[in-house]
Amino acid sequence: MIGRRLVNGVETSSVASDDRGLQYGDGLFETMAVVDGEVRHFKRHVARVKASCDRLGIPMPAASAIERDCEVALQGMASATIKLMLTRGPGPRGYRPPKDPSVTRIVISSAARNPSAADEKGLVLRVCDTRLGLNPALAGMKHLNRLEQVLACSEWDDPTISEGLMLSMDGRLVCATASNVFLVRDGVLHTPDIRDCGVAGVMREIVIETARVEGTDVVIGDLTLADLASAQEVFLTNAVTGPRPVAQVLGHSRWEPGPVTLALAANPRVIRP
Amino acid sequence: MIGRRLVNGVETSSVASDDRGLQYGDGLFETMAVVDGEVRHFKRHVARVKASCDRLGIPMPAASAIERDCEVALQGMASATIKLMLTRGPGPRGYRPPKDPSVTRIVISSAARNPSAADEKGLVLRVCDTRLGLNPALAGMKHLNRLEQVLACSEWDDPTISEGLMLSMDGRLVCATASNVFLVRDGVLHTPDIRDCGVAGVMREIVIETARVEGTDVVIGDLTLADLASAQEVFLTNAVTGPRPVAQVLGHSRWEPGPVTLALAANPRVIRP
Repeated sequence: MIGRRLVNGVETSSVASDDRGLQYGDGLFETMAVVDGEVRHFKRHVARVKASCDRLGIPMPAASAIERDCEVALQGMASATIKLMLTRGPGPRGYRPPKDPSVTRIVISSAARNPSAADEKGLVLRVCDTRLGLNPALAGMKHLNRLEQVLACSEWDDPTISEGLMLSMDGRLVCATASNVFLVRDGVLHTPDIRDCGVAGVMREIVIETARVEGTDVVIGDLTLADLASAQEVFLTNAVTGPRPVAQVLGHSRWEPGPVTLALAANPRVIRP
Repeated sequence: MIGRRLVNGVETSSVASDDRGLQYGDGLFETMAVVDGEVRHFKRHVARVKASCDRLGIPMPAASAIERDCEVALQGMASATIKLMLTRGPGPRGYRPPKDPSVTRIVISSAARNPSAADEKGLVLRVCDTRLGLNPALAGMKHLNRLEQVLACSEWDDPTISEGLMLSMDGRLVCATASNVFLVRDGVLHTPDIRDCGVAGVMREIVIETARVEGTDVVIGDLTLADLASAQEVFLTNAVTGPRPVAQVLGHSRWEPGPVTLALAANPRVIRP
């Protein structure tokens, strides 16, 4: 269910056909969970999109404008999901960015996602054939160039499969299509380095910080599918769902939801803004 | 100058903010030259976008609908440029393509590009720092994920530089930001293989075919910047400009417009639909 849609603060679902977000994917997005009328981790989402705007040379709108858009989009909704897109705005044909871009700010609210039984019992994942190209200039950002994820999600149709793991072109385990991935091995948390592909998820950052505050070692480095076999727990994170245990990676291992995953999922730092 | 804009055959510049072309770059585009009221190489453009639609699983609209859109967009314009975008249409949040997508067909006409003195005397190019990630699943298509090209074009501001050469992540010469590249060496035409990045340009295909018909050997393979030094001619191609000689790659070699380039640029097969 779509809630309200705003473009540059005005209630409309209409964007110009020469917007560079459409022409070239020249922009960024954030997906935010709304609980009890509040956008969870709003400041972190704003900080991430600002950091990416700086990298792409897109002027960052005032956080207050985004906040106001969210309030309007959320009228009457206590639980919801907010999608924010920022693009370099309209422009003539040609890749070169205009000197003074007029940023397009899009906010779309939709009904909150219903938790599924798999969220608690553990997700079933497949390993996608579609791989992630390497490019440090784009890595980490939640930009609008998402064809690799679209192709990866086209690979399966089985509703019992919740997510797909994605490997980099050189065979490293990087993420799932819309989540970051963590392994627990001998009490240490491992998550892939995203220096040349993958997204620096807000929930990934929160989980890393929270684990460290709680005294758990976190190693950010290169992982492969072989590392799944030696993991005692595997979980996915994203800002909408929080941490979710993985029960099975098809063709690889099975796990029960473990204590590290469950403690992180219940940690107030992870749950609250 | 923008001419007319159509979305799904209707004169409007408005696209829905949940269009997957905007959300994920989930679509394709073509840029076509219009000369004497006719879209040059229209059938080839349609064939290319259809082949890419098939790869992405996007239903291809009828060529007759695209043709009609072009006619409307071109009313009163004898020379122009047409940009066609096809997207997987609107959809809810989430990368997974809808089962029955309602394709969005966008046509925008704009004034024809004025040839510059450099088009005849030879272009000055820089070598871009931004590289192209490798992904065979996306290579060859003119899809809407173009942030690499946007970043590459942001690298320079000097109007005497006409284009930027782009290397792949592993250091091969692939293309320029909006053109394919050819070298002439000892009477043989060389152009980069685009198996894992780069676009299979319509004009690239025409030049390869034309050269072969005229008895010139064409080698499609791996090239590096070092190959520039041993080339007697270098030229760029795209559908709007046709073949254009390169006079200089900054920090590398210089050339005069050569006989192979000039003969191809003047060949009726290259010029006419």
